[in-house]
Amino acid sequence: MDGSGLLDLSHERQVQVDAVLARFFSLAKNRAAAFGSQYVTLWETLENNTVGGKRFRPKMVMCAYQSLGGDDLEAAANVGAAFELLHTALIVHDDVIDHDFTRRGSPNIAGTYRDRAIATGASTRVANHSGISAAVIAGDLALFNSYRLIDRSGVSDQMRTRLLEVMDDALFASAAGELIDVDFQIAAEVPRVDDILTMERYKTAVYSFECPLQAGAILAGASEQVVSTLSDFGREIGIAYQIVDDLLGVFGLEEETGKTTTGDLREGKRTVLIAYATSTREWADAAHLFGDPDLTDEQAGVLRDVLIECGARSFAEGLARYYANRALARLAEPHIPPALRAELHPVADSVLGRVK
Amino acid sequence: MDGSGLLDLSHERQVQVDAVLARFFSLAKNRAAAFGSQYVTLWETLENNTVGGKRFRPKMVMCAYQSLGGDDLEAAANVGAAFELLHTALIVHDDVIDHDFTRRGSPNIAGTYRDRAIATGASTRVANHSGISAAVIAGDLALFNSYRLIDRSGVSDQMRTRLLEVMDDALFASAAGELIDVDFQIAAEVPRVDDILTMERYKTAVYSFECPLQAGAILAGASEQVVSTLSDFGREIGIAYQIVDDLLGVFGLEEETGKTTTGDLREGKRTVLIAYATSTREWADAAHLFGDPDLTDEQAGVLRDVLIECGARSFAEGLARYYANRALARLAEPHIPPALRAELHPVADSVLGRVK
Repeated sequence: MDGSGLLDLSHERQVQVDAVLARFFSLAKNRAAAFGSQYVTLWETLENNTVGGKRFRPKMVMCAYQSLGGDDLEAAANVGAAFELLHTALIVHDDVIDHDFTRRGSPNIAGTYRDRAIATGASTRVANHSGISAAVIAGDLALFNSYRLIDRSGVSDQMRTRLLEVMDDALFASAAGELIDVDFQIAAEVPRVDDILTMERYKTAVYSFECPLQAGAILAGASEQVVSTLSDFGREIGIAYQIVDDLLGVFGLEEETGKTTTGDLREGKRTVLIAYATSTREWADAAHLFGDPDLTDEQAGVLRDVLIECGARSFAEGLARYYANRALARLAEPHIPPALRAELHPVADSVLGRVK
Repeated sequence: MDGSGLLDLSHERQVQVDAVLARFFSLAKNRAAAFGSQYVTLWETLENNTVGGKRFRPKMVMCAYQSLGGDDLEAAANVGAAFELLHTALIVHDDVIDHDFTRRGSPNIAGTYRDRAIATGASTRVANHSGISAAVIAGDLALFNSYRLIDRSGVSDQMRTRLLEVMDDALFASAAGELIDVDFQIAAEVPRVDDILTMERYKTAVYSFECPLQAGAILAGASEQVVSTLSDFGREIGIAYQIVDDLLGVFGLEEETGKTTTGDLREGKRTVLIAYATSTREWADAAHLFGDPDLTDEQAGVLRDVLIECGARSFAEGLARYYANRALARLAEPHIPPALRAELHPVADSVLGRVK
């Protein structure tokens, strides 16, 4: 399958998943009307919050599904849409936990409601409360309906049961990872590298890679061996992606990533970069800057230089390559069909491409 | 059925529901162990948060179910437990929205985590963050598993589908009501009586009365007419209960209710009492005290006196009686079996007993 073929397929999958979500939100808004216009507005805001995403998780579902021979694209799109709603719920509630009103530089649900309240003359305190409240409620609706979308995807009872176990695993792990991440922020000392990798695996890789790939494979009726290997691939590449995310959060190009490269340093975010750096001599000189809420761009530059000097950057890059290669090794196993290998190879390559 | 028989039945139902929940939490804790001890602790905290409740909603499920001839108590207890988890999720997230660390005078999940963090030397800000985070995560797990408990209750596929629609209705309405309640708190003017009743119906009565009763009736295979009338009964008595709740929040006996009788006045909570009062001349003199965060007990006493003088108290009591009597009228309909009528009559009577 050549590159442009994969792009066409990717676009087609996105269109199908978007159609499922559009239908879901349309039904919800119609139903919400009986409860008052502000409830319709909440659903509209939630819908706007899911529009325009990369649909990465749904693509993982459908990629696994189609390349393993599945042809009921409607069912696959429903399962994919379910994972997109789960993703939405988790990031909306993650922003509540962090009291964030923006994501990637734009207002999130909390920010949208806060801005509206401010525009009507509310105080900052009241506006913030309005925002956080809407985000808690919207996240609950997205979470509940992630389950419901699979439940009503039209698949057989037995298939439904298995897929819902996968969705359950996704939330169970993500909640555990989020809790560990919160504990990291509270703890005085910086965690070890492997503890951070564990947290990142639970918090993000499981629901973003492992479970969507498993779900797509199960839906396609793949063997237990294929499902298991795909899950392993998902774990390895998911961890690799998180390490790359950590690198981009400090060294990336803001126009590309949409994230600032001072945010993580200012916030004192515990990443593998920092975990490695704290084991080095060089870090001691700059450690006081890390986590400073008033960190200037210049000081961020100093931290970046130290992270390079002390070897943290190249260590993290090497670690990402290591996990990406382990992921490729899973794909190379003989029971993985060529079509599946062809589809997932680029996913691993894109990690390697960022850490040349 | 005499009083003591009903009490025995009530106790037996609670034991069964408790058994379902104990089994659910036991499985979850075992599964959580692989993710780290702090995740087990979160599940333990969530379990402690559900222990000792009145199990009101499960009792509504099982009351409807058994008095309509249902005899699969295990299935009914699962459905009842599901509504208890939904209730837990909603109050945990309601406390997140209100930034509350206690409920009925005791630490809730957020409070438990905050206290633990303070005990390890964390600052107030960090401890609060720890608390709110744990509460967001725990609420998500409870919500997701409310769906799952019905999904895995062992009933037929068709029954499962209907019950899950009821659970969906419960959350859909509660989210709408919560949003309206948040808007009330933000708006400068006090809402009208009927808007408050609508909010209270959506936010609480639907998931606490209407839906559990519907679910029990559906599970028992009752006719659509019975399900519909039970739902109406649930709506009327649910509204009556909320009005009584509003009254107890100002005039109740703290030893009985477990709630303070200054909290609502200090918080400026929009209730039917206040909505009525704001239409009267007498309220103007005391209105400035309402919602004062530093409200003293003496000032609360002044507000209470005004609420009596202006007629708000007797209006609310009359309104509660009105809805309780409407509920009893539903029970009196000929297609309601005597056993069901006998079980639910005391539920309505207990409202009337409080507003003699």
